[in-house]
Order: sequence, then structure tokens, then C-alpha cells
Amino acid sequence: MNNSKFIGFGTFLPGEPITNSVMEEIFRIRKDWIEEMIGTKTRYFATDFYEKEIRYSLTDICKNAAQIAIEDAGIQAEEIDLIVMSTATPDHIMPATVNLVANELGLNNIPTYQVQSGCSGALQGLEVAYQFLASGKYHNALVIGGDVCNKYLDLDRDFTKLRAHELINYALFGDGAGAAVLSTSTEKEGIKIENIINRFEGLDRIPGQIMNWFGVIPEKSHDMNPRERRKNFQSAKEDYKAIEQNVPVMAEQVLNELLEKGERYREDIDFYLPPQLGGNMTNKINEYLNIPQEKGVNCVENTGNNGNALPYIQLNLLKERMSKGDTAVVIAIESSKWIKTGMTLVKE
Amino acid sequence: MNNSKFIGFGTFLPGEPITNSVMEEIFRIRKDWIEEMIGTKTRYFATDFYEKEIRYSLTDICKNAAQIAIEDAGIQAEEIDLIVMSTATPDHIMPATVNLVANELGLNNIPTYQVQSGCSGALQGLEVAYQFLASGKYHNALVIGGDVCNKYLDLDRDFTKLRAHELINYALFGDGAGAAVLSTSTEKEGIKIENIINRFEGLDRIPGQIMNWFGVIPEKSHDMNPRERRKNFQSAKEDYKAIEQNVPVMAEQVLNELLEKGERYREDIDFYLPPQLGGNMTNKINEYLNIPQEKGVNCVENTGNNGNALPYIQLNLLKERMSKGDTAVVIAIESSKWIKTGMTLVKE
Repeated sequence: MNNSKFIGFGTFLPGEPITNSVMEEIFRIRKDWIEEMIGTKTRYFATDFYEKEIRYSLTDICKNAAQIAIEDAGIQAEEIDLIVMSTATPDHIMPATVNLVANELGLNNIPTYQVQSGCSGALQGLEVAYQFLASGKYHNALVIGGDVCNKYLDLDRDFTKLRAHELINYALFGDGAGAAVLSTSTEKEGIKIENIINRFEGLDRIPGQIMNWFGVIPEKSHDMNPRERRKNFQSAKEDYKAIEQNVPVMAEQVLNELLEKGERYREDIDFYLPPQLGGNMTNKINEYLNIPQEKGVNCVENTGNNGNALPYIQLNLLKERMSKGDTAVVIAIESSKWIKTGMTLVKE
Repeated sequence: MNNSKFIGFGTFLPGEPITNSVMEEIFRIRKDWIEEMIGTKTRYFATDFYEKEIRYSLTDICKNAAQIAIEDAGIQAEEIDLIVMSTATPDHIMPATVNLVANELGLNNIPTYQVQSGCSGALQGLEVAYQFLASGKYHNALVIGGDVCNKYLDLDRDFTKLRAHELINYALFGDGAGAAVLSTSTEKEGIKIENIINRFEGLDRIPGQIMNWFGVIPEKSHDMNPRERRKNFQSAKEDYKAIEQNVPVMAEQVLNELLEKGERYREDIDFYLPPQLGGNMTNKINEYLNIPQEKGVNCVENTGNNGNALPYIQLNLLKERMSKGDTAVVIAIESSKWIKTGMTLVKE
């Protein structure tokens, strides 16, 4: 029996929201194009593109989100006995960023884990914490998800001369962090994890998204994969058609599986936290899943796609809306090599 | 009660062993200097430095090690129901390399995790698998550790003109992969995990090792950490003095903690698998821990420091030497931000 429940949440979005008007000014991406094609209104950047300065590291924003979550949980930092962080964009190869965050929080002598993942990372990290808590050896796990996508970009480039396929990523992705305290406490009320799913389903399927190591284009790119070496260097590649086709279908499969596992019906679910790829895509997924507007908990329109932070930001919105006995389903799909994740939550 | 045990092991070292004579030829690192200062005789590279070609990706070598481990376990690949991989040097930011390995092995519909870590990664990955197996939901976990350090290097550089602090890394580090099958099987004999420890102890301590993202030196380095931006770009930085001072002490602490947890005495332990930093350092640790030569299971002298692969390579050597009832202690220390890991094993 696993009684892990969320007792606190925190989020942190760096700097001011970057509107589409500002995007047009900096990148010469047409405001109306972003609105129509992507449907995202604002995003946040750890980098100041006017001043060409990196303002926040991943460590910084994750620490900030974690502090808020610990405070929200009403516990002392010293009561945290496990940290699991997920990110696609760590500050260094070594040390893992989770250890720098632990250091900033003044924590020591506890296990720390960092899961490398994209959109499915938040739920993967949560499941790791969930399984560790089940052992009875740990009581309060700090779980963190965050990404700082733009720190790997060459700030000296002329942003008004970027190619179209690069511009789409600036418009789509943003930076941010979220955190939660997952606890076995019997005294505190919280939001219980009823079921959690995480599954790789990418066998023989072409990746929908690839991000390489180098953000600054080296004169000659020595890609890791010998088969790709002769292709042009690109820091990120997306197959938006495949994403648009597959993500809604996979999201529905996760939803049905969670309902079956929990012996619940669609009508039983009070809130839905669907995948947040971009404003338009999220709307399409909501339509495909027949999620009534008042039951949807979405954020991407305002935050941009900040990867591992997204489900935490949705959870943070959810907590204000849930009443005792309410249920919620969270779904995140990673299109990189096709990973399905989801969980069912019940407010105690 | 957790009955997880190892039922199979596999390792893969890319290409031919690179001797110190070859190192002298390619890098003009003096053979006698390597022998005296580092004490490593051979290492393996995924890169062919003569032909300036990348021969193996991390995916390739991890797949090879995994296949051997599955065969050694005497199970079918389809019986694997969980994969946990650890690495410091993934092939891409996304997808996580573990998913590319799963794909190569023909596996699908199972959870896959990738832990980002250095020298402590193998034991961290093992503990994740160990905790998941305890849930009773999984039966055969494939655990993998591997690193390909040199793929991020600019192959067009003149290697005979590298600076001393760069040369040491070529002499010290190598590439490789290891894998194991951790199982809850009651039918198969195996090596049981009695206790496992993983703990961050880096609070307020300066990192002993930092590896940054960019292996190819960009014209202007935009380091992730704003505070470091003005320093010269360096792909890897080590504080060998701090490592030499701290690792033996931390290794002894792990050993004592494991003995205490298992209510065992030093005399009870039949085999020791100590940290493998480099030939000389490992000898120093063995001396410091008073490990009798016949009880030590070491590999770094022949394999080079291949990070996440090392404990798997030691385990693969151990399995041939253990008899029923024998005990072994495995210790790995990560100097990046100071992480202690260890486990006690018992042959059933």
C-alpha cells in the first residue's frame, strides 16, 4: 500500500512574461503568426535577450520553486529526506544539478536523484519518489522539475536573422521550474496519488523530437550518432506532424488505462491536466479528449512550454480548485522517443 | 523485505585496448608519466583517434553490454519489465539514451529511466531498480551504466598540442558500458543486495569535479552559470588534491556504515570492490582501507576510468570469484559534488 500524497507545491518563472509583441521586436517573429500557429501568449526566459545576459541558471529557478513548495507544505527543509529532480537541460554534465539545488537549500546527507527526460520527466521523477516512499525508509520527498532551454544559445547571434525552424522553438519553449513535497504523513491533508503510469512506447518509431548537446553551433559538428554526422548540425529538431497526430491518441490511451486501473468512469473525474505542448496543441488535445472547459487545468498559453516544469505548474493551479473527494487525471506525453505518463489524484 | 538479486552481468569495452605507448604516439603524453602519475595501463575509446572517427555511440556500447547481461541471466529480452540506465554522457539531451537502447533491444511498453550522474551513477541506478522491484510490480530490471567521454572532443584539434590539464583526462578516462539483470526470481540463484546506500554529502563543499556541456570550445563560451561566465571555458575541471584527500575517507565511512547496517565485521567480507578512479588512486584507497590484495576486485588499471560502467565491470569480475555464502562490499564515491554510494552483496 502506497500512501504518498502531495502536501505542498511551488513554481518559479524567471523574469517578466515575454509577450508576442516583445517576441516580434527581438526575433522579428510576427506576433500574429505566433498567435495563429502556436497559440501561446507569453513565456519566460532565464536569459535577458535585450541585454544578452543569462539571468538565471537551472539551479537558481529550481531552488526558488523548491523553497516555495517546502514552505507551502508547512515543513522545515531539514524534514526533506530525499530529492528527485527531472530535467532535460541540466546546468552541467557533472555535478548533477539536483546536488547544486540541495546545496542551495542547505540540505545534506540525503539521497539525490536526477532523471534525464523531456516532457515525461516530471511524472518519471514523481514515480521515482513514489517508489522510494513506499519502502517506508523516507517520509518527505522533494520533487522538482525544471528546464532552462535557451541558455545553450549563442547570444551573439543576430536574432533577427534566424531561420524559420529555429524561430518556432523560441516562440514555443520557455524556461521555468516547479516543485512539490510528496509525503507519507498521516497527519497532514493532501492530494493522494492513486495510480501512476510511465511507459516507453517508441519501439521502431522515429523520434518526434531530438535535442542535441551543442546549442552554440561549432564550426564542425561531431554529432554523437555516427549515422547523423553528415547531416547539418541542429540543436533541436521536431516533427510537428507526428506530434500532432500521436500525442492526442496516446493521451487518450493513458486516460483510459488510468480509469480502468482505478475502476473509475469519465464522469468521476473532476479535473484534467492534459499535455501542454503549446496553446493550440493543448486546445486540440482537450477537444480530442472531450474535456469540458471547466474541468481543464492548463498553463502553457501563459508559461510557454517549459518541459519538466509544466505538470508542476498545472498541479499548483489544481490545488486551489480541488475540494475533498475530488479526483484529477494528469497526462504528459514525451514525443522524443514516445513515452506515455499519467497519474490519477484524489484530494483527501 | 526486498529480495532483489543479480542474475546476470555483461560488459562492453569499445575497440582495442589503448596502451600507454599508443597514448604517447597520439597525444605525446609520456608513457612513463602516465605509468607513474596515473597508474593506468590501458583504456578503451569509442573514438578512433587515428582515423578521427567516432566508432561507437553510448547507445551502441550500452546495447552490447545489455545483450550480454540478458543472455548471462538466462532469460528472454521480453522478460525485462523495467530499464534503469545511468550515465554522465548521454548521446543527446532528448531522447534519453535509455530509450534508444530499449529500441535496439526490441523492448517496448516498459518504464525506462535515465539517471544523470558520474561515478556514483551505477549504484544510484541500481537503487532505483531495487526500489521499483520492491513494489512487487516488476520482476526483471535491466540496469545499465555507461559513458563515452571523448565524443564531445573536437577531433580536428592537434592532439600533440593539448595542454597538460587536458592530457590528464585523456590518460585517465576511457569509454565503456556495463549492465546487469536485477531480479525478484525465486527460482534462479544469484547475488543478493543486502544493503544499499546513496547519499549526497556536498553541502558547502567545493565540487571536486565539474564537467561542462560543451566539448568543442565555442569562440565565446556562454557558461550556464552566470558566475562562471568570465572564466575560461574548460570542458572538464578536477581538483585532484581534494579527490585524493576525501575519497579514501568517504570510502571508509561507507564501508563502516554498511558493516554496521548488516551487523557484519571486516573479517566477514570476502571481496571488496573499491572506487576506481585511476590505477594509483585505487591502490591508495585499497591501502587506506586495508584491503588484502586477494580480496580486492579492481579493473581501472586495464579499463581506464569509464565512470558509470566501472562498478558493473567489477561486478562482472566478482561473479566468477564468489562462492555460495560469500559476501562483498561495493563502494563508489562521486567527487563532483561529493556523493557516497555503496552496497553489501551476498551470494545465495
